[in-house]
Amino acid sequence: MTANRIRIGMVGGGPGSGIAGVHRMGMRLDDRFMLVAGAFSRSLDKSRQTAAELGVDEERTYADYQQMAREEASRDDGIEVVSIVTPNSSHYPVARAFLEQGIHVVCDKPMTGSLEEAEALHALADSQGCFFALTHNYSAYAMVRHAVQLVRDGALGKLRIVMVEHASGWAADNVERDLDNKQAAWRLDPKQSGEASLVFDLGTHAHQLMRFVSGLEVEEVAAEMQTCVPGRRVFDDAHVQLRLSGGVRGSLWASMAATGHEHGLRIRVFGDKASLEWHQMDPHYLSVNYPGGRRETLVQGHSGMSDAQARLTRVGLGHPEGFIESFANLYSDVAEVIGRYRKEGLNRYEDIPLPTTRDGLLGVKFVMAVSESHRQQGRWVTVDPYQEIPS
Amino acid sequence: MTANRIRIGMVGGGPGSGIAGVHRMGMRLDDRFMLVAGAFSRSLDKSRQTAAELGVDEERTYADYQQMAREEASRDDGIEVVSIVTPNSSHYPVARAFLEQGIHVVCDKPMTGSLEEAEALHALADSQGCFFALTHNYSAYAMVRHAVQLVRDGALGKLRIVMVEHASGWAADNVERDLDNKQAAWRLDPKQSGEASLVFDLGTHAHQLMRFVSGLEVEEVAAEMQTCVPGRRVFDDAHVQLRLSGGVRGSLWASMAATGHEHGLRIRVFGDKASLEWHQMDPHYLSVNYPGGRRETLVQGHSGMSDAQARLTRVGLGHPEGFIESFANLYSDVAEVIGRYRKEGLNRYEDIPLPTTRDGLLGVKFVMAVSESHRQQGRWVTVDPYQEIPS
Amino acid sequence: MTANRIRIGMVGGGPGSGIAGVHRMGMRLDDRFMLVAGAFSRSLDKSRQTAAELGVDEERTYADYQQMAREEASRDDGIEVVSIVTPNSSHYPVARAFLEQGIHVVCDKPMTGSLEEAEALHALADSQGCFFALTHNYSAYAMVRHAVQLVRDGALGKLRIVMVEHASGWAADNVERDLDNKQAAWRLDPKQSGEASLVFDLGTHAHQLMRFVSGLEVEEVAAEMQTCVPGRRVFDDAHVQLRLSGGVRGSLWASMAATGHEHGLRIRVFGDKASLEWHQMDPHYLSVNYPGGRRETLVQGHSGMSDAQARLTRVGLGHPEGFIESFANLYSDVAEVIGRYRKEGLNRYEDIPLPTTRDGLLGVKFVMAVSESHRQQGRWVTVDPYQEIPS
Amino acid sequence: MTANRIRIGMVGGGPGSGIAGVHRMGMRLDDRFMLVAGAFSRSLDKSRQTAAELGVDEERTYADYQQMAREEASRDDGIEVVSIVTPNSSHYPVARAFLEQGIHVVCDKPMTGSLEEAEALHALADSQGCFFALTHNYSAYAMVRHAVQLVRDGALGKLRIVMVEHASGWAADNVERDLDNKQAAWRLDPKQSGEASLVFDLGTHAHQLMRFVSGLEVEEVAAEMQTCVPGRRVFDDAHVQLRLSGGVRGSLWASMAATGHEHGLRIRVFGDKASLEWHQMDPHYLSVNYPGGRRETLVQGHSGMSDAQARLTRVGLGHPEGFIESFANLYSDVAEVIGRYRKEGLNRYEDIPLPTTRDGLLGVKFVMAVSESHRQQGRWVTVDPYQEIPS
Repeated sequence: MTANRIRIGMVGGGPGSGIAGVHRMGMRLDDRFMLVAGAFSRSLDKSRQTAAELGVDEERTYADYQQMAREEASRDDGIEVVSIVTPNSSHYPVARAFLEQGIHVVCDKPMTGSLEEAEALHALADSQGCFFALTHNYSAYAMVRHAVQLVRDGALGKLRIVMVEHASGWAADNVERDLDNKQAAWRLDPKQSGEASLVFDLGTHAHQLMRFVSGLEVEEVAAEMQTCVPGRRVFDDAHVQLRLSGGVRGSLWASMAATGHEHGLRIRVFGDKASLEWHQMDPHYLSVNYPGGRRETLVQGHSGMSDAQARLTRVGLGHPEGFIESFANLYSDVAEVIGRYRKEGLNRYEDIPLPTTRDGLLGVKFVMAVSESHRQQGRWVTVDPYQEIPS
Repeated sequence: MTANRIRIGMVGGGPGSGIAGVHRMGMRLDDRFMLVAGAFSRSLDKSRQTAAELGVDEERTYADYQQMAREEASRDDGIEVVSIVTPNSSHYPVARAFLEQGIHVVCDKPMTGSLEEAEALHALADSQGCFFALTHNYSAYAMVRHAVQLVRDGALGKLRIVMVEHASGWAADNVERDLDNKQAAWRLDPKQSGEASLVFDLGTHAHQLMRFVSGLEVEEVAAEMQTCVPGRRVFDDAHVQLRLSGGVRGSLWASMAATGHEHGLRIRVFGDKASLEWHQMDPHYLSVNYPGGRRETLVQGHSGMSDAQARLTRVGLGHPEGFIESFANLYSDVAEVIGRYRKEGLNRYEDIPLPTTRDGLLGVKFVMAVSESHRQQGRWVTVDPYQEIPS
Repeated sequence: MTANRIRIGMVGGGPGSGIAGVHRMGMRLDDRFMLVAGAFSRSLDKSRQTAAELGVDEERTYADYQQMAREEASRDDGIEVVSIVTPNSSHYPVARAFLEQGIHVVCDKPMTGSLEEAEALHALADSQGCFFALTHNYSAYAMVRHAVQLVRDGALGKLRIVMVEHASGWAADNVERDLDNKQAAWRLDPKQSGEASLVFDLGTHAHQLMRFVSGLEVEEVAAEMQTCVPGRRVFDDAHVQLRLSGGVRGSLWASMAATGHEHGLRIRVFGDKASLEWHQMDPHYLSVNYPGGRRETLVQGHSGMSDAQARLTRVGLGHPEGFIESFANLYSDVAEVIGRYRKEGLNRYEDIPLPTTRDGLLGVKFVMAVSESHRQQGRWVTVDPYQEIPS
Repeated sequence: MTANRIRIGMVGGGPGSGIAGVHRMGMRLDDRFMLVAGAFSRSLDKSRQTAAELGVDEERTYADYQQMAREEASRDDGIEVVSIVTPNSSHYPVARAFLEQGIHVVCDKPMTGSLEEAEALHALADSQGCFFALTHNYSAYAMVRHAVQLVRDGALGKLRIVMVEHASGWAADNVERDLDNKQAAWRLDPKQSGEASLVFDLGTHAHQLMRFVSGLEVEEVAAEMQTCVPGRRVFDDAHVQLRLSGGVRGSLWASMAATGHEHGLRIRVFGDKASLEWHQMDPHYLSVNYPGGRRETLVQGHSGMSDAQARLTRVGLGHPEGFIESFANLYSDVAEVIGRYRKEGLNRYEDIPLPTTRDGLLGVKFVMAVSESHRQQGRWVTVDPYQEIPS
């Protein structure tokens, strides 16, 4: 496979960065990528320091992502895809630079901080014929994929209620006081991340997971946000009522102030035949609950998994896989898409359920609607029609 | 103790009734009551049939609760307290009849179906110097009592979020089609129980449990209800946002359409130091979750229980107690109050946390506000000020 | 039903006693018994004190169980059955006194402390045509009964391995130092309870549960016991290998020194199709595990329960029942047997799976074999052939 | 780090192999190794096929491990360490070939199939000054490391009982009938793997985990084995009583016939202050149970972890890590040791708790003793004195 490994670059991920390391582990796990270029930091020194650690040639180490996009695009062995792991506010310009050069993109969520930027990226990826994957990694867990299959196959019957929450305790305390906490610094700064940064950060994960598992879209929201931690300048707790397509009702709770929760992403979907439940803390299980007091737990690697799910299960029944593997799954999906692209261009990959700009755009629209509803004292606010967004 | 057993009567609970049997088991468990009179049915024959099974004298078996109230009040050995287990719509006239005779009342929840009736009972119990206990049995579980203690003692710190749900699957299916299902017949009939019967039935349990554990009151609600089961004439699913006293926010979910849930009563309370979680399906445990990845499970009978909780724990550590015991706990509380009444009249029993007419009245006000908010498309609706209700 | 209530007496259960209260709650729960006589203590004063609390006539309150047996047998309204809740060492003489008067017996386990006594009671009950129920209450849990049904119906396939443990932490510490701890005083005294008191107390529960659920008998044991708590004069930890009928193998672990375990009774049975698991701490669930990563949890009240199990489920799906209810179930079984006896003598009750003298005798034989194997350095020791014991 | 990556080779792991892929993912995850040579198969074609997939130069691709050992030893850029993932019976000759060339070894467990071979490797590694790591990966889980720390720090008090089991259902069925199942073919063939292959395969994992967590050694065993699956030619179920150092008692259960278990590795350790419990299926949790009904669950990434444990936790609190990460942890340990070796030779690495030849030798001695005890009808058999094995 070595000759066929996909050439990937990275923007962000220099010294002290957070999620970039998980992206790189995710790329490495299945050995289908070669990290050959990077603008790991705006400081060339720091960028080179990271490049040296990662074995990236100095020649292909950049401080300026625009230069990187141009130069890589001009090389015969240039990168095929770039992974963008910078803070949220720079996703747009960075992604744009690479898309304009015809380079595929893997981008951290949320896609952008504004609707205009989101729409622009959505259109640009399309016009450039580029693939754009958004790293909503939770939807790449094997058992989440099985949940989707159960819903599609009608195992739950007609859906009626969806309850989803991403209620974390990561900022339950006054973490912004710790000046060394880089995550807290930008995530909790309203100037960089907006007042509703919580909904961008965690809410969009819950939103995408809910849409992914249920197959439903959010039509209207009624929201209430609050700030729990004294002195904090952004909201840290959001309660959202949902009117979903198909007349389904539900709730979404996003919080970073849920003391005692380690992660807190969890979904429950109720149909008229059965309900399902999945927790990110125990991602190797999926519960299906039937009427009449019978609960079923499926274990990752179980004999009912499809081939597509089996591809996301590396070590079989009884050997738990976790968060890093969810990123590896997402990159495995990216590798599948790029493998096809090499052969036949960007034609069809509907069977590979990667989040794309459409999901990113819907995520931003969701955040906007939540903010608007909150401003209007919880009035029901229509989310911009999803029907008009081409997939 | 035999000479001192409390003389109790019952209205309702004839052949085929549901919860009455649990009340009677709850009375019997600790042997502090004698069931000596009853109007078990409006049919004298059926009332006598039940009386015979229960060992109640024919002389004190009635078909007419008003006659029962009068005659028992006139006897030297008349009942001291009556247990009302009729369908919700008759709670008011029955309770009124006994209160007017100065007889204490234990009454199934919800207290009444209208605000006027609720206020009338609240005033009447007060003016008659009678004790009125509402059977929100869930707040009588030993581990729920410990949860209250943890909150009061500051173990959770300053409260910030409360999430409560009573989402059952009992009517997830079209149970009203089964003509033999008496519960379904009256609970799902909008004429008997109102469109919001779900909120009366299950929502008030969640509401009372939330108030009991958190010590907070609901100030405003924003609600959305739906009917999941085709053909059903009442709402079977309700999502309620809460603005609570002290600036705390939260959500309450009541459902009888949650397929695959057996019971579904569950509460989570988050403070700035820790959070707690309790599920009615596993009532002998209480979870306390701390920041930093440490979760604690306390088991009924644990060494940190107070004496008041120990009274509600009959068989000690490792021997689970359940739903029937929660009724026994409630009746144990009633016995404590009546024991004091015998000695000193109805003076002080604040230390015995039984739900009373105040809770019943607040419950009805909650249902009214939820219905009003739903009618107004989820607008925030103020719950009638609780401050004005004397406790 | 009142005229038909079963007249029961009790020996033991005076002031400060332990399990007697649970027996009495178990009797009361379903209201099929009247406690009308008792020798609650060897002290007449104490016996009368308890009688007064329980509403037992002074005339039928005794200090001497032999007198009680004689007098009750001579009354027209004498007790039909006696419940024996004295310390283990007196089970034999007390049971004998009542059996000789033709009075049925409910007796705490273990049946006796010696093989001779066990055999004598077994023979005596038979010759007197009396019913003798041993209170292995754990086998009366509804979900345990369902486990039996699954095994019998072949849901697990051919059995191969059985793992059972009753490893409690009740005496993990030096509880005998507390002179007020009456339980510790007699249970941990080798003179009263024997060196292997642990195996009598907890081991026989595990032994009976294992036999009950699996339908298998113990043919040989290889055992190792130890004393964990310094200064203790009895064994407090026993590890037993089992050779069971049908060529099945297994292990039994009994301990009272398992620090951090509250109760610790748990069974797992493996067949060639599936396995099951049940924990006494969560008695309302039964897990059935299938090959291929599918685990099923059945909840008490589930729709697959038989009528016989439904009788042991008072409050239906989602309303947990616990330890006291297991005693109520056992007494419900006793009531069934006695109901039939009244009509037709002691003919047939095989369908009511109450533990009897046969189980008591097998339990004592098991303890003897364990002790013998330990003395012989863990050599395999044959348990006296169960085939010869008439059931 | 790239210049510093450790040069590693692999023997075994050609097309269709099982665990080799997990080794390679484990190596890749933290990017501290370069796989630069391999004898992936005895067939040169197949070896080259795998090499091509992995990006290993054809020049350094071998069919003969002896040739590989010689040639790599003679290169300036030769491998520093070899990973041996062949079937158990060839571990000895392969490891010997590399040790003789002064090349460090990572070897799958069990180390060897005979005592002589085990002793020879133990001596050879020592005399060659080579490092030899045995892939008992379960002891590399972060929460297992924390368990060790709790025991060492005295959090459990004085130990008294240890219960460990590796009871899997992987061969609960007649898997050997499936001729494509390569694992089954050699693991269930008594000629290749011995009658006690189960104890070699799973028993040594449980044995090592037990020794690792408790810090105790097995002094004597009493064992009983059986074959559950008809027609099988090896034992598939083993029950072992343990006499451990320090007078501690315990049990070890190894099975591959435990229907419905997916993996089944689990350990419980009881001291006089508390007990702990860990399950491999949920490796990110560690339970600590205290007297008095208080159970604590620690979550991977919790604030009480040491720096050494933090190194084994890549993604922090709330992001579960699993089986692959346990291999990555083990390889991370190997990288630490080799990093030191480069600087200062093989001096000290006691602080890095990797399993070595000493563990491998003790594992083989354990299997021998279990087999001997079984042959002697479960008599207690002394395990060869561990005191004499230099660590």
